[in-house]
Amino acid sequence: MQASSPAARFVVLEGLDGAGTTTQTRLLGEWLRGLGLGVHETYEPSPGPIGLLIRQALRGRLVARPGRGEARPPGNDVMALLFAADRMDHLESEVLPALESGRWVLSDRYYHSSLLYQSLDGDQAWVRALNSHARAPDVTYVLDVPAAAAARRRSGRGATPELYETDPIQLRLEGLYRELPRLLPGEPIAVLDGSRPPAEVLRSLQADLQRRFGLAHPGAHAPV
Amino acid sequence: MQASSPAARFVVLEGLDGAGTTTQTRLLGEWLRGLGLGVHETYEPSPGPIGLLIRQALRGRLVARPGRGEARPPGNDVMALLFAADRMDHLESEVLPALESGRWVLSDRYYHSSLLYQSLDGDQAWVRALNSHARAPDVTYVLDVPAAAAARRRSGRGATPELYETDPIQLRLEGLYRELPRLLPGEPIAVLDGSRPPAEVLRSLQADLQRRFGLAHPGAHAPV
Repeated sequence: MQASSPAARFVVLEGLDGAGTTTQTRLLGEWLRGLGLGVHETYEPSPGPIGLLIRQALRGRLVARPGRGEARPPGNDVMALLFAADRMDHLESEVLPALESGRWVLSDRYYHSSLLYQSLDGDQAWVRALNSHARAPDVTYVLDVPAAAAARRRSGRGATPELYETDPIQLRLEGLYRELPRLLPGEPIAVLDGSRPPAEVLRSLQADLQRRFGLAHPGAHAPV
Repeated sequence: MQASSPAARFVVLEGLDGAGTTTQTRLLGEWLRGLGLGVHETYEPSPGPIGLLIRQALRGRLVARPGRGEARPPGNDVMALLFAADRMDHLESEVLPALESGRWVLSDRYYHSSLLYQSLDGDQAWVRALNSHARAPDVTYVLDVPAAAAARRRSGRGATPELYETDPIQLRLEGLYRELPRLLPGEPIAVLDGSRPPAEVLRSLQADLQRRFGLAHPGAHAPV
């Protein structure tokens, strides 16, 4: 059994593809476990069945073919609804049970990605409505990096670009991510400089979590 | 090539499981084709990839397992979002291209099912918002049958009951289907007695379509 904490928190990392959210989720998880806390690390699209469907769409394997004509990505409305469905399934299956059992949850992306990515062509109020039943995180960190730097990191991975991973889209998203605290004024959202070396970014995240949630005295959270 | 008509219509059949919507969709399709019209018959959940996922959930093959515990059906929010995602994909891939090519579209179920089935536990305004980007049908026919009669027809098929196919749920839905015209006052919705023999139900549908869309003179719609 993990040590349980009465104040398990739901922490989200957000940013462009290549901003370092996956790395920082892993590093934060290690650090929190080192403090004796139970931790559940996760990500969206989730590893569940709807998340798998979304990944196939992002990779161009699941397509729309209007009238059985040429293959093209599913429309924005379909993607927005699928992301929201995956999110509710992810909450129900993983996030809420982990929090209820006293574990911290770290999620690499959450509804903030939907609000920005699926609103690029469309109706942001509608995307917000789709996600209105999703529990708000206790804090969200935006790892702010220039789109060009994120693109270099992505190309360093050697993977084929996915849907949304084009320079013009990522450039628009770079600015939108910085606006996120103004878009969701009721939520605790911190924008951090993600272009620094990973160890420095991690120190900023640790300092903010310590200040925000009283993690300054790790001894208090040691396993029983 | 099908004969194209400048006034191809989007017609929906709705009702309880066992109300006869599948039979009447097929019979209406035959009749309209006999008038020389191009027709696309379809249904929801759609035959597309999201529709398949929904069918697995309805049949108990795709489940939620909160915290990897006991299997249970996905939550209502997940189902409502999946149905809406499938609907937008169905519209984009099948319904709209068929209408644009001049074919009539007959759909066995549409968003009315979502408004009733996925609002049973919850938030009807939210379910309406999810479906607010879906094109309204030109006419919707509710085949009104007593829940007990629909249950007898379902058990006659010998299939295992699906999610929502319980007596208490179907009894609530029986009343809600009759209220549908009041729930969506801006839409043309006709409630017909679906407990009559199929040929009589078909004659009512034909008479209404003729009156509503000027199909009284089949010769005008003969293939070129």
